[in-house]
This record gives sequence, structure tokens and C-alpha cells, in this order.
Amino acid sequence: MSLDFAAIRAAQERIRAYIHRTPVLTSERLDDASGGSLLFKCENFQKVGAFKPRGATNAVFSLDDATARRGVATHSSGNHGSALARAAKLRGIPAHIVMPSNSAKVKLRAVESYGARIVFCEPTQEAREVACADVIAKTGATLIHSFENEDVMAGQGTAAVELLEEVSDLDVVMCPVGGGGLLCGTAVAAKAMRPKIKVIAAEPANADDAARSFRAGRLIRTEKKFTIADGLRTNVGEPNFQIIQRYVDEIVTVSEEAIIAGMRTIWETMKIIIEPSAAVPYAAIVERKIDIAGKCVGIILTGGNVDLDALPWM
Amino acid sequence: MSLDFAAIRAAQERIRAYIHRTPVLTSERLDDASGGSLLFKCENFQKVGAFKPRGATNAVFSLDDATARRGVATHSSGNHGSALARAAKLRGIPAHIVMPSNSAKVKLRAVESYGARIVFCEPTQEAREVACADVIAKTGATLIHSFENEDVMAGQGTAAVELLEEVSDLDVVMCPVGGGGLLCGTAVAAKAMRPKIKVIAAEPANADDAARSFRAGRLIRTEKKFTIADGLRTNVGEPNFQIIQRYVDEIVTVSEEAIIAGMRTIWETMKIIIEPSAAVPYAAIVERKIDIAGKCVGIILTGGNVDLDALPWM
Repeated sequence: MSLDFAAIRAAQERIRAYIHRTPVLTSERLDDASGGSLLFKCENFQKVGAFKPRGATNAVFSLDDATARRGVATHSSGNHGSALARAAKLRGIPAHIVMPSNSAKVKLRAVESYGARIVFCEPTQEAREVACADVIAKTGATLIHSFENEDVMAGQGTAAVELLEEVSDLDVVMCPVGGGGLLCGTAVAAKAMRPKIKVIAAEPANADDAARSFRAGRLIRTEKKFTIADGLRTNVGEPNFQIIQRYVDEIVTVSEEAIIAGMRTIWETMKIIIEPSAAVPYAAIVERKIDIAGKCVGIILTGGNVDLDALPWM
Repeated sequence: MSLDFAAIRAAQERIRAYIHRTPVLTSERLDDASGGSLLFKCENFQKVGAFKPRGATNAVFSLDDATARRGVATHSSGNHGSALARAAKLRGIPAHIVMPSNSAKVKLRAVESYGARIVFCEPTQEAREVACADVIAKTGATLIHSFENEDVMAGQGTAAVELLEEVSDLDVVMCPVGGGGLLCGTAVAAKAMRPKIKVIAAEPANADDAARSFRAGRLIRTEKKFTIADGLRTNVGEPNFQIIQRYVDEIVTVSEEAIIAGMRTIWETMKIIIEPSAAVPYAAIVERKIDIAGKCVGIILTGGNVDLDALPWM
């Protein structure tokens, strides 16, 4: 793998003009409750409402002109689709976003608002991949995978860079793991900037393929149960898993109850809106899955896109 | 009246160690929608979840030692009670908070958590005042009224000072008006720091006594209809009205629908939690009650305490 800190630093320069440098927030009340010192990197305030534009923008602006002109494509039911559509618009190139026919209207509208072309498919992983391959064959567009692409991983790592630039003495950095794009970028960045830092990922127990794979030392596909953390339902990627094995210290799992309670606590205490996936690392602290007593812990709050008509505690 | 900018500057020094300097956030999307440039002063991130600790803390720390030792008292069903309890705890003096017997449990718990004594009364304005006078007669405590007290007004004005320190070229500053404590502090501070600024208050049409009084040039008591903006149900105070007449440029009113829609838009777009009262100025912009085209508009988001089980759009 060639994902290294130089690639992440280059990404930081490449995307700087197109993304927010998001704030790092703290809460005395959550510190008191946890026994540690928590620093929340607020990617819920990022463009598109999630960290995803970091990676998508880096990938789009890494393409040479001739390749870029043919456009980009991906399959995504979530924030990566919007992020890629936005990045393509910023570069002035076509974007083809394959989306399941049952996608939420708000997500369709977001992608459309950036002028991307939506290609509908059946709501299965296989149908998504087939439809995406078909688009690429017909248009010559470049696939920008939402987490297996190295430029995407490098871009996602810039959130951790900003966090460590602001708070240099972190003992631990935490993020959730789904496909592993954010985790790879975070781990490589954090270990380069602060070699003694612990990189700890958190995952819903109901979608614990990354944790099981990490323990087994080989990629395991698990049967997924439902998780409210919709951003983390995906399996960890193969290239991602290799990087995770090398750089990540621990992967912990959390209950659905803890995700919902943690999300609500952050809403009530910090007055910020985060989506269920973003609450997963904090849920691990609440469930005492890791010991953070006296430690300085950076947590990447990955996004804030929720349906306000269907909150998990309703 | 002796409320002047010197009092507000003195308040700023007095309370600096006890309150947050809250961030000023912006949103390109809301700017595009409104045609102006909006700067949101986030008092929803303030201690106690609202701007109220600014005034309460200033009032408590303005007392001489002998007076302070006898304690402070107020009647409040909302954030001022918690703010006063907290300020008294910081100074190490007793606080007596008169609260209606039907107060929300979360508010009772907040006041209790600061070690204040709660005195229950019937949920009418008269009962509150009688119970408070009784406490004061028995204990010698000093009344810290939630908006008629000048030290409270001076403290509330520090939010506008911080906002104008950060963004010096505001054309307009907006806040909601209930009793008028925040509005008085805001108006005096803003006109001192930037004499050509327009100070515009916003009020629910269903509780429009301040707007009517302002137009009539004399204090008018109106029959209140229900408003979702629970922080603004109170009548504007007499001392407040005098200051408002002198310093405020305009008071506009907004519909209940606009308050709810505006609140939801800010949640969805900015990913921050604000209470209905805090959405009232933005609602006035959405309803085109003022012309902000091309203007730089500071908006004080007054608080973020909401019951997540009973959101207005549920």
C-alpha cells in the first residue's frame, strides 16, 4: 500500500479551499462523566454534513485533466454520493452516482443539487456494482470508491491532521469503522504525527465484521443484523483491512442502546446534531469498552445528517 | 436609567472566568437563501444552554459581600433560575428559586444540581411574585429579577460585545424580545460599539406586546395567545421598555409556522440545536419582515434547551 502521511499532507493542501476546517468542541459535563478529557472534531459541520467531502474532493482533484474530463462515478446511498457530486461540480466534470431506487428523497435531492446524473438500481450490493460498472463502461468515467480508493483514504485522514494540529497531546484518537476509509486515513495520520498515540475504532456490535476480522487477523464477512448506525452497515474493505492491521491498536463494539443513548447525550449536552454513526465512539466510552481515565481523547464526529421526523428515540 | 456601555464592559470583565466565549457560526446555504450575510452568535453553546448566565453571574458578582452573604432569590420557570443557581454556587452564597409546581422535571433537576433551594408555587405570575417576596422577607436575600435588573441587562449585553469584537462591520444586529433583558443589553452595546448599526428585535405575533408598545410609544399589555417560543411569553419590563424606546430601531413579529420552520432549517443546515425562542429572529428573515439584501446581520441564538421527546414538528 502506498497510503502514507505524505499523501495525506498533499491531500490537505489539495482540498483546503473546498472544505471547512471544522471546530474542535469540548464539554466539561462529558469530561466529568467519562473521567477523561474529550475533544470532538465536528465533521457534522463539514460541507455536505459529513467528513466525506475530504476524500471525494481529494480523489477528484488528484485526477489528471484528460481522465477527469471523462467524469467520475460511484455507487452510494449515503454521503459519499453527495460529496463526489459536489467535488465533480467544483472541478467542472460529470459525475454519475448509482443509487438504490429506495434511497431517501433528501439524499437524491442533495446529489441532484450538485448537478450530478443519478443512475437508479435495485437496492442490493450486487446491483449497485453492476450498474456502476455499466456506467463506467459506457462513459469512460473513473470509479471513485467510497472507501477502497487510496486518494479517498488520504483525504479522510485530513480530519485527524487538523485535530492533532489543534490538540497535539492526544493520548487516544477514536473514529467509527464501516468500510474503513476514515479509519485508515486517521490511523496513518495520527501515528505519523504522534507515534505513541492509540488509534481505537468503534463499531456497532450488530455489524462487527471489522472487529472480528481484526481479532482473527484475516478478513471475515459476518451476517449483518440491523444497526441504527446506517453509515456503518458496510463491510470493511480489503485494502482498508491491510492498513488497519498495521496501524490500528484496537477495535471495540457497542450496543444499539448505547449508540442511541450516546447520540442523545451529545445532542442534549453539546447542543449539536450528530447522526447515529457519529455517536459510536462515544458510546464505547459510555459502555466502558476502553479505559480513558485521565486521558486526552480525540473523537471524530463523522456527520450530522439525520431525518428529524424519525429520530431513534421517537 | 444608568445602563450604559461602561456597565457592560465592566460586566464583561466580571464574568469572563465564569462563562464561555461562544463561537460565531455562518452558513453559506442560509446566506444564499436570505440574500444577506448571517453571523450566528451561538449562546446555545453557553453554560446552562442559554445566554442567561451572563446576566445572572454579573448580578451576583456585583453584590457587596455583606449583601451577597444573605443570598439571592428569583422566580423563574426557565433558564434564568438555573443561571442564578449556578452563579450563586460560584460565589458560595445561597440561592432561592421560586418555581411553578408544574415546572418541567429537567428544569428542576438543573436548579437542584447547583445546590439551590427550590420554593414551589402555583403556576401564575401573581403566585410567583408573592412567593418570591415572601422568601426575600424571610431570608434577606436580594431579588435578581430575570430582566428588569440592570446588572442582568448589562451582563446580557456582553454577548453582543463579543459578537461585534469578532465581526466589526455588522449592519444589523438581531435578537428576540420577551422581557427585554437581552434586547436592552444588546442595543446599548451595539450602538456604543457601532453607532450606525440597526438594532432589530423579533417577537412572536402571538405574544406581541413589545412590538405593539414600541409602535404606540407606551407600554401596552396584550392578551397572550400560545406561542411555541416559551422563553418569550413574558411581557416586556417597564425599565426595559424605556431603554428599548431609546436604542432599538425596529421590532418585527413572526408567525408560529415561521418559528418552527426556521428552527428546523437551522437544525438541518447548521447541525446545531436551538430552542424555538432562538429561531425567532431568523424566522423574521424568512418571512421577509426586514430587508437584509447585501447586509451583514448578526443574530444572537439565545439558547438550545429543548425537550427532545416533544419537538414542535412531531
